[in-house]
Amino acid sequence: MSDRKEFRDLATPEAAHAAIESLDLSPEPETVPLEDARGRVLAERIDAAIDVPGFDRASMDGYAVRARDTFGADEADPAELDLVGSVHAGAAPAVTVAPGTCAEISTGAVMPEGADAVVMVERTDELDAERDDPDAEEDEDEPDRIAIRTAVAPGDHVMSAGADIAAGARALGPGTRLTPREIGLLSALGVDEVPVEGKPRVGIVSTGDELVRPGEALDPSRGEIYDVNSTTIAAGVEEAGGEPVLYPHAGDDYEEMERLLRRAADECDLVLSSGSTSASAVDVIYRVIEERGELLLHGVAVKPGKPMLVGRLDRGGSDAALESDRTGESAYVGLPGYPVSALTIFRTFVAPAIREAAGQPEPATATVEGRMAVGERYGEGRMRLMPVGLLDLNDDDRPLVYPVDKGSGATTSLVEADGVVAVDPDTEYLDRGERVTVQLFSPDVRPPTLLGVGEDDPALNRLLDRLERPRYLPVGSREGLRRLRDGVPDVAVVAGPTDREVETVDLGGWTREWGLVVPAGNPADVTGLGAVVDRDLRFVNRPTDSGLRRSLDDALDALADERSASRSELTEATAGYELTVRAFESPARKVITGDADVGLGLRETAERLDCEFVSLGEQSVVVRAAPERADRDAVAALASALDDPADLLDGLAGYSRNSRNEP
Amino acid sequence: MSDRKEFRDLATPEAAHAAIESLDLSPEPETVPLEDARGRVLAERIDAAIDVPGFDRASMDGYAVRARDTFGADEADPAELDLVGSVHAGAAPAVTVAPGTCAEISTGAVMPEGADAVVMVERTDELDAERDDPDAEEDEDEPDRIAIRTAVAPGDHVMSAGADIAAGARALGPGTRLTPREIGLLSALGVDEVPVEGKPRVGIVSTGDELVRPGEALDPSRGEIYDVNSTTIAAGVEEAGGEPVLYPHAGDDYEEMERLLRRAADECDLVLSSGSTSASAVDVIYRVIEERGELLLHGVAVKPGKPMLVGRLDRGGSDAALESDRTGESAYVGLPGYPVSALTIFRTFVAPAIREAAGQPEPATATVEGRMAVGERYGEGRMRLMPVGLLDLNDDDRPLVYPVDKGSGATTSLVEADGVVAVDPDTEYLDRGERVTVQLFSPDVRPPTLLGVGEDDPALNRLLDRLERPRYLPVGSREGLRRLRDGVPDVAVVAGPTDREVETVDLGGWTREWGLVVPAGNPADVTGLGAVVDRDLRFVNRPTDSGLRRSLDDALDALADERSASRSELTEATAGYELTVRAFESPARKVITGDADVGLGLRETAERLDCEFVSLGEQSVVVRAAPERADRDAVAALASALDDPADLLDGLAGYSRNSRNEP
Repeated sequence: MSDRKEFRDLATPEAAHAAIESLDLSPEPETVPLEDARGRVLAERIDAAIDVPGFDRASMDGYAVRARDTFGADEADPAELDLVGSVHAGAAPAVTVAPGTCAEISTGAVMPEGADAVVMVERTDELDAERDDPDAEEDEDEPDRIAIRTAVAPGDHVMSAGADIAAGARALGPGTRLTPREIGLLSALGVDEVPVEGKPRVGIVSTGDELVRPGEALDPSRGEIYDVNSTTIAAGVEEAGGEPVLYPHAGDDYEEMERLLRRAADECDLVLSSGSTSASAVDVIYRVIEERGELLLHGVAVKPGKPMLVGRLDRGGSDAALESDRTGESAYVGLPGYPVSALTIFRTFVAPAIREAAGQPEPATATVEGRMAVGERYGEGRMRLMPVGLLDLNDDDRPLVYPVDKGSGATTSLVEADGVVAVDPDTEYLDRGERVTVQLFSPDVRPPTLLGVGEDDPALNRLLDRLERPRYLPVGSREGLRRLRDGVPDVAVVAGPTDREVETVDLGGWTREWGLVVPAGNPADVTGLGAVVDRDLRFVNRPTDSGLRRSLDDALDALADERSASRSELTEATAGYELTVRAFESPARKVITGDADVGLGLRETAERLDCEFVSLGEQSVVVRAAPERADRDAVAALASALDDPADLLDGLAGYSRNSRNEP
Repeated sequence: MSDRKEFRDLATPEAAHAAIESLDLSPEPETVPLEDARGRVLAERIDAAIDVPGFDRASMDGYAVRARDTFGADEADPAELDLVGSVHAGAAPAVTVAPGTCAEISTGAVMPEGADAVVMVERTDELDAERDDPDAEEDEDEPDRIAIRTAVAPGDHVMSAGADIAAGARALGPGTRLTPREIGLLSALGVDEVPVEGKPRVGIVSTGDELVRPGEALDPSRGEIYDVNSTTIAAGVEEAGGEPVLYPHAGDDYEEMERLLRRAADECDLVLSSGSTSASAVDVIYRVIEERGELLLHGVAVKPGKPMLVGRLDRGGSDAALESDRTGESAYVGLPGYPVSALTIFRTFVAPAIREAAGQPEPATATVEGRMAVGERYGEGRMRLMPVGLLDLNDDDRPLVYPVDKGSGATTSLVEADGVVAVDPDTEYLDRGERVTVQLFSPDVRPPTLLGVGEDDPALNRLLDRLERPRYLPVGSREGLRRLRDGVPDVAVVAGPTDREVETVDLGGWTREWGLVVPAGNPADVTGLGAVVDRDLRFVNRPTDSGLRRSLDDALDALADERSASRSELTEATAGYELTVRAFESPARKVITGDADVGLGLRETAERLDCEFVSLGEQSVVVRAAPERADRDAVAALASALDDPADLLDGLAGYSRNSRNEP
């Protein structure tokens, strides 16, 4: 087993890049049908094998002529030529154009022998057939002489064979990425199979007994969580041009884990592991690498990502080796376990290597210049890859950049951040307004059009559904107003009373009924707040930032006044007053699972989840915009969606139009 | 049959957009497995169905404690707690933390009952077991008391259930494009199937007897060409988020064409046709639309694209209707036949409608601001969608934009242009340096790093293979120098003598042997130029812009001098002197097919194609850079690839290092 203390001797990010670059993940080139070639990269030059067009081709509808026969012709003095036949596209010419004759020809048709130019039909006239000739056998509708009202030069309106591209000419170079345009040129050359760079096969081995694949049943009481990294990294591998291969979970069966690592090395160009928070799992990986491979680097001086490993795994360690034509060794990178960390390390260090191996260019849109929306302090002595969100105010200035740091364990950070800013170890402080470069998580990341913060609410969810790419952080009413004041979001959604004085523009809102959620049938016969305070019931609360909590505390104050007591006397008597849960439905769910007798919540939630509800009042929910953002298009779209909230509130029990919105 | 003169009454581009927007191409939403969801767009909001994490979760390795037991503890005066067991990730806790006790816990594990905080392992010490207790049954290596050197508050280093995202909370809104990040969040929620917007099925019907699918045999004598539009447009449909369906060729069998159109309408959301240059094919389309559908628009005032059609096709016209669940009508757009025109009209009018129907956002990188590299004159009274190439000089100015107009029939324009500039009908002139917006053909278009023009040459092809994304236009030496002087390309490749005086920087080059290519065995016993002039042999030449032609003409001048004749006397005696073919191999290929007895060419070509060669001399091939471009990175890379041309010339018969490059 390796001496794990070596982690303290962290490699620089440059050394990590160099270690990964030293690995060979390049697959063999392969041949794919043209229809599957979009987005692939040519492995070799394609020269034209044929002339395009393959024949001298009329490029106009008209008459094929000998140019010399038209010399001197003009509107006043047309040349007259005998019509000897016609040639259509896709047919071999059955006529020869002798001096003094012409043939009707359509665009794309083969030039008949003898002809060297085309006169466009608009510069010609059909002359009547010589009807007095008794021997004439022609169809009466067919003219047999054509007046040519212009002179043409040899080659006029003719695309000569090979003029587009000639046999032997270089058509596309190696390394060309195939877009519809290149596919068009290859089609013209008759190419239906293309030699392209192979896709590196990337095996993903996820370790950790707590991980369950999405779609399978989860037992939270055993600490099980869904495996986020395998699917996220697989999607990232695909995006970078690789072919992900997901291996089954090894759990904490170390023999199985070892077997899987060896099989993955035999079958893949690169093996990634991630997901284990267990020290023993890391030890297994160390042992496999040391027994059959080489560890190049462990631990990189970036945050997150300290536990990154880079190495090589010898092939031939599994039965799969017999079936695989891969020999030598596979590359190996161990990613951190937390999803944002894993994705950040993947896209910073691993994705470029996969693209390189696949011959894919670095994406053009992977970085954005922005300005810090807030100041941010650092100073940990290692490079920080700070997850950030973006908000483009469309004000001719760079987009706002704000740090998103909910702890690396949060999967919601994945969608609340748009990319990372690499902060140098020497940087101690990033000023508000400072210019930074954001490395987007992927080139198709679209930052939100609108950033909202505040209370969570079911009508708000519907409202958000009507907007184009909003981002909403349900931080609660109080925290929402604080953030609005600090200048990052566009709007804050505030429920209930508030003591924060923040200048805002009210965009509208609604009223919702709040109170106590109890089990169906109300077994404890709860009739009001008094029961929660006075009786031995298990209560479940919302956090102090929530508007529901603020209304509850006001009601407790009123009850305390009534009883000439203090609020704290009442709250101390309430079992579970300090037990706060995250979202508007969470207390009701605790009631349903029997973990609580009474929960703070909404009539809407109680009715929807088939609970009973004891009303304690109504509270307004108001969407409040930062004054300097009120004119933004996205904010105006939000305001207009609020103009008639009736539709938003339809079917939501306990919801009504806020008096502020009455006409 | 429709009155085709209506084409003269062209619709505006805005009307064409409106007509296409009025069509309904939206498919039904569908459900796809999470692993296939990358790049798709959510059809509905996804709320969290579970809490993430699903339990109170340790976020550090350490000891689970009751926070109250640590109050007052510090380095000087640690709290001592009894160790009652341990909890690992992925296992249900088997212990309860009573007052005065603690449990070892690993990151990700379930908090045991009683504990409300975690002390990180770094702030603890293991205390020796009380070895003097004779009843102690513990493993001797297991400590049974832990010193806690810090106070923690309830919740410290614990991620509470639902803290990441709680059941009932809005996770992702409708219209969200799924990147690896969103796939990560969906995984965390255990979602393994995702409701996404459907991909519109787009049927591609290509008409025209002359079209042959790539990979099949081509008969140029019948005027056959490969079908470029079907594959190009199919790739474009895929890129826009649609599902292309290629229908078999109808040829010019009009009944079959009608049957195919009806079947495509029954099976698809949108039917595209293109490719026919035949008026009768268009008439069939008109008839089908008029009998069973509606023609909304024919002819748009854009160049190219005049013959564009927009309409609707009623469903139920084919046997396929029985198997299809589609009813109502399908959208129909008829594209022009020439590839660049078809792709331009597709991306301008059709791709946005497909993206809209697929719920896909407009690509962020589909336009580039550039400056005209040359002046360009217009004035045709309709909007011009001018194909242009881009060259980014990386000089802090916008990329250069130059028109690419080889005639819309040229498929090479597909790869020589990067996009189009929409020139307003009222614009008569675009000035050199004028700022224009280029609509890229697709968001993944990468303009070239280097633009070269000039002679075509096999060693040059190898040189180009070593550069990253070069673009080379084989316009010949003379035209190449002219273009270099006009300031668009970076380099011109010049073969043989030249009379153009253009100031350039020579980057290096080589020497190639040129002469006459004759059939194997030299059946006509050609020994030199005299034979071509004096005997009844069919010669095939290169165009006047070619360096080979210039060397030939110099040799003819010398022969004329010798004979005291004029060059024109000699050239008039040479059958085929005026017959010029496109590329360096083309004359040799004419000799091989028997269409000529003698061709102008290179020893390299003759030997490679197993012909015989009569040498007439050597000519230098020199890569010449525009002086102001000589310092560009891409030009420097080219110069460095030329430093040692030996490797470039290896195995090329008749090639040698140019004296200019000798040390």
